[in-house]
Amino acid sequence: MISAGVVGATGYTGLELVRILLDHPNFSLSMVTSTQDAGVPLTEVHPQFLGRSDLVIEEPQVDRIASICDVVFLAVPHTAALDLAPQLIHAGVKVVDLSADYRLADPEVYEAWYGVSHTSPTLLDAAVYGLPEVNRSLIAQANLVASPGCYPTAAQLAGIPAFEAGIVNTDAPIAITAISGISGAGKKPSANNLYCNVAESVQAYGVGTHRHTPEIAQGYARAAGHEVRVVFTPHLAPLKRGLLATVVLPLIEECTLSAQELFEIYSNRYQNEPSTYVLPYATMPRTDQVVGSNRALVGVSLDERSRTLVATSAIDNLVKGSGGQSIQCANIMFGFNEVAGLDAVSMVV
Amino acid sequence: MISAGVVGATGYTGLELVRILLDHPNFSLSMVTSTQDAGVPLTEVHPQFLGRSDLVIEEPQVDRIASICDVVFLAVPHTAALDLAPQLIHAGVKVVDLSADYRLADPEVYEAWYGVSHTSPTLLDAAVYGLPEVNRSLIAQANLVASPGCYPTAAQLAGIPAFEAGIVNTDAPIAITAISGISGAGKKPSANNLYCNVAESVQAYGVGTHRHTPEIAQGYARAAGHEVRVVFTPHLAPLKRGLLATVVLPLIEECTLSAQELFEIYSNRYQNEPSTYVLPYATMPRTDQVVGSNRALVGVSLDERSRTLVATSAIDNLVKGSGGQSIQCANIMFGFNEVAGLDAVSMVV
Amino acid sequence: MISAGVVGATGYTGLELVRILLDHPNFSLSMVTSTQDAGVPLTEVHPQFLGRSDLVIEEPQVDRIASICDVVFLAVPHTAALDLAPQLIHAGVKVVDLSADYRLADPEVYEAWYGVSHTSPTLLDAAVYGLPEVNRSLIAQANLVASPGCYPTAAQLAGIPAFEAGIVNTDAPIAITAISGISGAGKKPSANNLYCNVAESVQAYGVGTHRHTPEIAQGYARAAGHEVRVVFTPHLAPLKRGLLATVVLPLIEECTLSAQELFEIYSNRYQNEPSTYVLPYATMPRTDQVVGSNRALVGVSLDERSRTLVATSAIDNLVKGSGGQSIQCANIMFGFNEVAGLDAVSMVV
Amino acid sequence: MISAGVVGATGYTGLELVRILLDHPNFSLSMVTSTQDAGVPLTEVHPQFLGRSDLVIEEPQVDRIASICDVVFLAVPHTAALDLAPQLIHAGVKVVDLSADYRLADPEVYEAWYGVSHTSPTLLDAAVYGLPEVNRSLIAQANLVASPGCYPTAAQLAGIPAFEAGIVNTDAPIAITAISGISGAGKKPSANNLYCNVAESVQAYGVGTHRHTPEIAQGYARAAGHEVRVVFTPHLAPLKRGLLATVVLPLIEECTLSAQELFEIYSNRYQNEPSTYVLPYATMPRTDQVVGSNRALVGVSLDERSRTLVATSAIDNLVKGSGGQSIQCANIMFGFNEVAGLDAVSMVV
Repeated sequence: MISAGVVGATGYTGLELVRILLDHPNFSLSMVTSTQDAGVPLTEVHPQFLGRSDLVIEEPQVDRIASICDVVFLAVPHTAALDLAPQLIHAGVKVVDLSADYRLADPEVYEAWYGVSHTSPTLLDAAVYGLPEVNRSLIAQANLVASPGCYPTAAQLAGIPAFEAGIVNTDAPIAITAISGISGAGKKPSANNLYCNVAESVQAYGVGTHRHTPEIAQGYARAAGHEVRVVFTPHLAPLKRGLLATVVLPLIEECTLSAQELFEIYSNRYQNEPSTYVLPYATMPRTDQVVGSNRALVGVSLDERSRTLVATSAIDNLVKGSGGQSIQCANIMFGFNEVAGLDAVSMVV
Repeated sequence: MISAGVVGATGYTGLELVRILLDHPNFSLSMVTSTQDAGVPLTEVHPQFLGRSDLVIEEPQVDRIASICDVVFLAVPHTAALDLAPQLIHAGVKVVDLSADYRLADPEVYEAWYGVSHTSPTLLDAAVYGLPEVNRSLIAQANLVASPGCYPTAAQLAGIPAFEAGIVNTDAPIAITAISGISGAGKKPSANNLYCNVAESVQAYGVGTHRHTPEIAQGYARAAGHEVRVVFTPHLAPLKRGLLATVVLPLIEECTLSAQELFEIYSNRYQNEPSTYVLPYATMPRTDQVVGSNRALVGVSLDERSRTLVATSAIDNLVKGSGGQSIQCANIMFGFNEVAGLDAVSMVV
Repeated sequence: MISAGVVGATGYTGLELVRILLDHPNFSLSMVTSTQDAGVPLTEVHPQFLGRSDLVIEEPQVDRIASICDVVFLAVPHTAALDLAPQLIHAGVKVVDLSADYRLADPEVYEAWYGVSHTSPTLLDAAVYGLPEVNRSLIAQANLVASPGCYPTAAQLAGIPAFEAGIVNTDAPIAITAISGISGAGKKPSANNLYCNVAESVQAYGVGTHRHTPEIAQGYARAAGHEVRVVFTPHLAPLKRGLLATVVLPLIEECTLSAQELFEIYSNRYQNEPSTYVLPYATMPRTDQVVGSNRALVGVSLDERSRTLVATSAIDNLVKGSGGQSIQCANIMFGFNEVAGLDAVSMVV
Repeated sequence: MISAGVVGATGYTGLELVRILLDHPNFSLSMVTSTQDAGVPLTEVHPQFLGRSDLVIEEPQVDRIASICDVVFLAVPHTAALDLAPQLIHAGVKVVDLSADYRLADPEVYEAWYGVSHTSPTLLDAAVYGLPEVNRSLIAQANLVASPGCYPTAAQLAGIPAFEAGIVNTDAPIAITAISGISGAGKKPSANNLYCNVAESVQAYGVGTHRHTPEIAQGYARAAGHEVRVVFTPHLAPLKRGLLATVVLPLIEECTLSAQELFEIYSNRYQNEPSTYVLPYATMPRTDQVVGSNRALVGVSLDERSRTLVATSAIDNLVKGSGGQSIQCANIMFGFNEVAGLDAVSMVV
């Protein structure tokens, strides 16, 4: 068993890491930290783990983490990993960072969107972007993996096959809309995540300003081989968990592929993926089909009149969009079955 | 008081017409029909009207309707109004048709999307499309108004100011995504509208095939003065009521307007509208702000990096998206205050 | 038009008072106050009133209230009305108090449950408990009406007919369970009213300690003519609005009435009530049938095996359970139609 | 590995059995049947099992079941097991019956509540009621276990410790109210389980007539050692899963135990139970704390004024209230770890 730690164990993402690691066949959860709740038994904050864990929450001290953990998951706000990750790597711990600090290859893009300097550019060069569907072999060799954001995971899985195939007309910006569950906003109470403000309502937010935008553009550019402009419009809906990305992909004029041939680009692209499945042509996924699981479901349909491909992908924002995917990366880093501990099936009902 | 009838009074839309007409200062609800529930008191089907109405549901017979009603609202499935509307008009009754039968000016487009011949093309020529924000003066003179679909209402209100201003780059298809409440699917029980399948889940549906697509394209073309290709992707979310349309509008290169100037195009366009309001720049509406009201709220934001305008609009699909808007049209047809009976404020909480 | 003011206009209850008063045919809303939001236009806090009100929120100063208002609604926390009400009454303003300060006739009971001394016992003697179904004629003559709590309104309407009829066995304590929507907890964000903690979950709370308990017992005692012990167990469910009380009433041995005769006790009791309706025997109300309306729906059923009557009543906690009922009282105080401004029908869907 | 079959695999309960058995360390799922879906691959009906099972749904033929299965779970409607269970037992298969057919010890009670004769009274005598918390040793030796209903599971776990302790005053009928998720009503579409009728609403139903009533009374009588009259009022709330029972238990006059002593009766009663946990005194469970898990959480609080104990218990109606508990019984029957395959932790958020 590999010894694993979770820094930031009491937020929604940390909670999810704990839940999955406690049942993992190859990792043993040996440390959980939280500055705010240090000294408190884990089961006091999260009573659902009664009988499953005796861990007491600790302060996130690098020396102690390094003395106990082989791998550590950083479920921390952006900038916190700029400091922590280099120290942990230096101390010989493998790190999966769930913050945004090592996701954007270009530190200037990071600074433009996050408003702070990137103080760890050397490590940034060594970091591997943790989307297994595109970076599996690099993840296997990495000491620091930057686990993707929830929106970028869904948006990339829906768009990448088409960009890789070179069939997308990128003259106009690519429109990505997405709908996320409220857990994506974190557990701090505010007017935005109150039941009375969330139930029975939907709205768009962060148009042109959401920080996941450059991460999506980076992923599309890597797949396409050239820059891609994107317009990303996230929405909130009455869901605890679940995230759906809808990507509108106008085809280049030269592309005369049939609906079936376009579908096969997608189904072939993911046919060996253990976490990403393509549904039958024109069948669009529902988020409840993936909640609680590490799966992404992708649906694709051709709007023949406008020769536009519409692809949607559904994930659980806290699993494939966060905690689960970071464990998928750790499985790869340590040579385990890629979906060890991640085979829970969604309850659907 | 003008005598009004509702044909198809027991579906969700008919119910909404009844609810609003029972409190209307200028119309008196004198007849409700439903083939399925004929002979049954209205309050037996809808007990919330106890003490408010003694009407008994009748068969929808043209002669009887004509003998009682000055105006009739047809809350019927498509094709049903092809027969009914001409007879009623001929009998001297004004008609507001909530079906799709007279919305599309070109009968060939109707036939292509609805799979049936348009058997009433002459009346189609005389029918007026009932979006007051664009057709107010024609509605005032019409005997037959085709009340718009819910998605087209929201999509047009969000897009029209930009198309009218000539600032939209229409080289690529225009991406419209929308999220609707479940009442839009009607009240017939099926797997698709079960609580266990709807709650805590979202999904896209009808990509490239939703019948509201040509109605949106028709509205954009009228506003732009030339054909506009659209890609329309509707979604379902856990909402009883409410509909949000998100329209992605890439600007033409020649357009160098600032965010503020773009905002003013919208706020000026709707400043005198009694049912459509523009929120402050970059403030996006929530559907719960309009549920139960006849209001549309529009939000607009510029994605500066891609020079793309994103506009969203929120309506109650059963009010401004259906029953309420048809009464707004009838108010105009009879010269009443345009929002008579339609001034209920959304409860929000 | 009678000039009305709302003290505490920005909470959920105050919001509801404003919404109803703005459409009231006999009251004009001339003043809204809130210590927290003083100086801000009402429509800035509640944009749904755009175009409906130009009021600016003010500090709640007694002199100014008295100079403007004929009647004032106090939507304030308990203890706040102990000070305010006497001053306003002294200044000649009629007062409807929505706090708990004047609901319990015995100041010692108030002190036992609220943990503070009752500093206004003289006015307490003059105050009238504002449940129109039992106190109509007293309300008509009152200067101070204590508008009932939401749980007590529902619990009393479900229980009173049986207690008045003298058929309830009160040897054992009477079990009242109730389920409330989350708006009852107010709009201040906390872990308890977060979407992720409320959606898809129910729980009991405040067993033996909820402050509405003595108000229910007082109402039952008045109806029965002797003391009644009650056990009250409130629950929270995923509802914005709506409250259901379920009252379990074992019959005295002497009572040999049939189910139909028991039903008639209820239907006769409320047959002339404009806001309270009894559904057909054994038909239990749904809370969505009353949301947005001032109606209470009551259902009653006999468990023949145990000779126990079960009565449930559904109300909108913010209307008949709070703001609406207080306006019903004000209508009575001023001799208006008792349900003036209160005739909105629930949307149901 | 023990070979297990599920009869009625495509309903909500069957689905749950499949989900749990596919991950079970000691049972292998070797057969799934459904008359309606025979011949169809399981993953076609339930795509969430893609990659997890190649089973094809079969007709429920006794010979074939007997040739393949060591144990079979009957997720069938009442009366169906009257025929099936004797044949299967005779063929040497152990049976866990999730229908109501073998739950009530007295066939006359069965006939009174289900309106049909009990055609299998001999087997009824041999059947063991499958509530592990009271019947563990009998379950271990049984060939036929009658898995309890969802409401009776929750109601018994909340009430039994008090009845066993002999402290409940049973002169008056015992009031049990309960709130269930909609999955309890099955997956057949009807007006009752539509999203638009369920969301944002609660209601009571089946007062005095719900068939789980005699099963609750039977459990209480066994615990108390004498007959107990009960009044059971079930409610529906907007939950996919989850069930909360609230039991109101007036204490006998002789009982002078303190709140703490009463609490200890509960905590001691369940201290060694692997699936039932008592929360700290006066802490009431939330259903989301158990959804997806086989756990029951029990909370208990004393209403000192009326000397009444209120106990609530939360379960997942489809797990501890149905499929999970039946697998718990099968674990006991085969001598496995009682909670093998049942240790999933609730996701809470």
